Amino acid sequence: MINTQDELPKHPLKLERVGIKNLKTLIRIDRNHKEYRHIPRINIFMDLEEDKKGVHMSRFIESITEILEDEVQMNHKSLEQIGKHILEKLKIKHSYLSAEIEFQSEIPIYELTPVSKKDTIEVHDIKVKLNNNNGSWIKVLEASVIGNTACPHALAVNKKGTHIQRAVGTLRIETDFDNEIDLEEMVNVIENSFSAKVYTLLKTEDESFVVDKMYENPFFVEDVCRNILSISSKKFKRSKIHAECLSHESIHRHDVFAEGAVET
Amino acid sequence: MINTQDELPKHPLKLERVGIKNLKTLIRIDRNHKEYRHIPRINIFMDLEEDKKGVHMSRFIESITEILEDEVQMNHKSLEQIGKHILEKLKIKHSYLSAEIEFQSEIPIYELTPVSKKDTIEVHDIKVKLNNNNGSWIKVLEASVIGNTACPHALAVNKKGTHIQRAVGTLRIETDFDNEIDLEEMVNVIENSFSAKVYTLLKTEDESFVVDKMYENPFFVEDVCRNILSISSKKFKRSKIHAECLSHESIHRHDVFAEGAVET
Amino acid sequence: MINTQDELPKHPLKLERVGIKNLKTLIRIDRNHKEYRHIPRINIFMDLEEDKKGVHMSRFIESITEILEDEVQMNHKSLEQIGKHILEKLKIKHSYLSAEIEFQSEIPIYELTPVSKKDTIEVHDIKVKLNNNNGSWIKVLEASVIGNTACPHALAVNKKGTHIQRAVGTLRIETDFDNEIDLEEMVNVIENSFSAKVYTLLKTEDESFVVDKMYENPFFVEDVCRNILSISSKKFKRSKIHAECLSHESIHRHDVFAEGAVET
Amino acid sequence: MINTQDELPKHPLKLERVGIKNLKTLIRIDRNHKEYRHIPRINIFMDLEEDKKGVHMSRFIESITEILEDEVQMNHKSLEQIGKHILEKLKIKHSYLSAEIEFQSEIPIYELTPVSKKDTIEVHDIKVKLNNNNGSWIKVLEASVIGNTACPHALAVNKKGTHIQRAVGTLRIETDFDNEIDLEEMVNVIENSFSAKVYTLLKTEDESFVVDKMYENPFFVEDVCRNILSISSKKFKRSKIHAECLSHESIHRHDVFAEGAVET
Repeated sequence: MINTQDELPKHPLKLERVGIKNLKTLIRIDRNHKEYRHIPRINIFMDLEEDKKGVHMSRFIESITEILEDEVQMNHKSLEQIGKHILEKLKIKHSYLSAEIEFQSEIPIYELTPVSKKDTIEVHDIKVKLNNNNGSWIKVLEASVIGNTACPHALAVNKKGTHIQRAVGTLRIETDFDNEIDLEEMVNVIENSFSAKVYTLLKTEDESFVVDKMYENPFFVEDVCRNILSISSKKFKRSKIHAECLSHESIHRHDVFAEGAVET
Repeated sequence: MINTQDELPKHPLKLERVGIKNLKTLIRIDRNHKEYRHIPRINIFMDLEEDKKGVHMSRFIESITEILEDEVQMNHKSLEQIGKHILEKLKIKHSYLSAEIEFQSEIPIYELTPVSKKDTIEVHDIKVKLNNNNGSWIKVLEASVIGNTACPHALAVNKKGTHIQRAVGTLRIETDFDNEIDLEEMVNVIENSFSAKVYTLLKTEDESFVVDKMYENPFFVEDVCRNILSISSKKFKRSKIHAECLSHESIHRHDVFAEGAVET
Repeated sequence: MINTQDELPKHPLKLERVGIKNLKTLIRIDRNHKEYRHIPRINIFMDLEEDKKGVHMSRFIESITEILEDEVQMNHKSLEQIGKHILEKLKIKHSYLSAEIEFQSEIPIYELTPVSKKDTIEVHDIKVKLNNNNGSWIKVLEASVIGNTACPHALAVNKKGTHIQRAVGTLRIETDFDNEIDLEEMVNVIENSFSAKVYTLLKTEDESFVVDKMYENPFFVEDVCRNILSISSKKFKRSKIHAECLSHESIHRHDVFAEGAVET
Repeated sequence: MINTQDELPKHPLKLERVGIKNLKTLIRIDRNHKEYRHIPRINIFMDLEEDKKGVHMSRFIESITEILEDEVQMNHKSLEQIGKHILEKLKIKHSYLSAEIEFQSEIPIYELTPVSKKDTIEVHDIKVKLNNNNGSWIKVLEASVIGNTACPHALAVNKKGTHIQRAVGTLRIETDFDNEIDLEEMVNVIENSFSAKVYTLLKTEDESFVVDKMYENPFFVEDVCRNILSISSKKFKRSKIHAECLSHESIHRHDVFAEGAVET
């Protein structure tokens, strides 16, 4: 049996991350008595010692596949929990000091429109990352949500109105594996940090509600970013909190951006 | 000498387009007494008869390379002219009935800000396509320009203001090779079809000018699309004119879109 | 009640497509006794007469939302069927002559690895489009599948071996609404047209199987494209069949491409 | 004069990065007696104190615009030098503690094909970043180059050959502003780390040369990554060196990846 991977490499250098990027598979989650299905984009890496030429790539996939099969019986409740099981399985198949797995996916949330109270489904981008560093587990949860900014400077200066635009708010939380944080609550924090929350369905009366709200809450990207940080720091304890807002300016070809962090 | 390409294919089927996608190279143009440089993304295709297994891919690249070298001496004036020379050179190297080449690139335009009259450079996406069908030449010019839409319905309904957003207008013109049309003029038509034209640099007085203009010209994507069609049909003769407007709604997660065509 | 959309436009021009792009929602399908869930990217358009300023955008969303709610009771079996119901509902809410809806999504397929017979899940990109033109229905199904090409010319010329690369095959079928065609069968046709079919999980013995297969089936992109056309034309009747192959060359920075069509 | 930006924010939190993303402009460089033109994507940020509501975004653009105009007279020689001048100009217009600017662009390199010695132009992605932290300057140079990997494990196991694929190598160097490092030399290091260097133009004899080279240098992504680190550490002194290799596997749908770092 030929094991090229276990040979000595020409340059004996330790590598921080070796593994797989952009793998897609089907994952079922049973969370809060609802079944969720994800087709995430998965990145999975481990470190590689200086005396091994390569990792055994198929063992990553086997760890994922075997855990996903077990899950059908085991009824797991979150992407981070499946991620932890995959990295534990990988540790048995392939020795490492540090390893990580990241899931990029989407979550659909059922909502009511603000005035007409009609049903609407809102879909948001999320990332869930698990890191095992020498046995200690860190998780990183991220949500990116679309909203808007109405410029307070132009509103103060102009008689007719201000410029308004689509913006994307991002909240990333790094915390202990056991610190339970809902992605839906993170989405909620970001939505409440914009000039106005947006909806897929808006009847005329809903649209007026959203437009009025934008004029009542004129925000720079800096304001949105600080809003996310401020609300998050009250809600999410024992966490490193990172926030961003990117605004697709309606008066420019470029975007404006703000980024900050707090620790709780 | 082995010529696998000239063998009979297993399935004797004619193919419409065979060639190269996403090739990047450096091109110099001498247009209106200014030197332009492009690093375009190039697609180049020809048809393939049912009795040939494959095209000789390297002849596409040779045609491009040799023409680009000639151009240094020959001082050509447009991407469409270089494209024509490349397809003519290709015809000598590799028999075809129909062939096409497309350049995707950007053009920088020097402008003045609307009130403060400061210098600003605006960069726009363009495409130039040449088609040789059995000896007859068609060119297709396209420009995509960023601007904005201010919703006329919300403006009529709401007291406080309306929703405004970044939008992208696209104008595509299909015409004879000899019908001279400036990409800059196409950009100009699109910019004049939005609620307001946008700028990279805006001092406070310029920003007020742009915001006022948006409120004075509330447009749906349908209006922007029809504006492009209407202005173009007066300017560009003997052409198939296609227009699109895509608006990144500030009150929704999705985009709204309009598309139409006229012939002159 | 103000209805800006029903006013006369400044330029009385008919528009071919007006509507919504890049809308995301959650869709459940009951197909072959299995439940599928999609979070598709949806485009939905209708034509607009020359005497109407705009369409009522919220009626698109309402049509989608109401059909998705009905579906829970009605237990539908395909994206094309839901699409048909959405366009029929839209016709009641908003008069049109022609309309279309497109879903871009993914399908997971359970497979066994070729030699070790282990479970593996393979995820493929699909598009489903429905077109209602004055009451007549056309559907367009598309699958894009990853495989590879091993160059037959380099294999014939070189002693050591040939160049091999990842390639993407695309099959698009335009047919009557009632002509039942499985997306899984389309994926299968594309996979069998490559030098070798690829897998997410491959143990050493499976990897050898795939590598051997590539050397036994050296194909140009032209061959892959013709293979797709040839196999499809036997399987899928009363159809316009379009095939493409794009190969991410391992010896170049650019891609090579072939495209063809047949009618059955 | 209303200065909303200088008001107190609702939440007095310091922000790490506030500024502009995805700005495009035209830049001319005079380097090694050749004129280079870039249309880079520019990101430019500064920190924001906790007692200021916002930054003055137009001052970023003015700093860029004014420096680009000066440059015409001043004849500068690199993106990092222009970046330094922009951040110095910004410091005069808008107080900050830390600021950074990043240019994402492309460089064309003239080469000869390996055997037939024909002219070919190769275009590579680059990034240049300047960081001013309280007066101390750091620059980060990055190049991403396309090449390939031929799997050494499959070559050892299989009789017929191995799997080969397109790969992307990335080299990032963080160093003092005054440490002169050529982007072209960085590209060269990456190209020499692959199984074989690739070319836009290849005649049959060149193609054989490249195919042979791949079989003579079978490399995992781990090998390519270590090759980049090893060669770089000899060439580039007083630097933090980071290397990556991403391989678009021809036998899988996913990519494989390796990442490492050394300091010199």
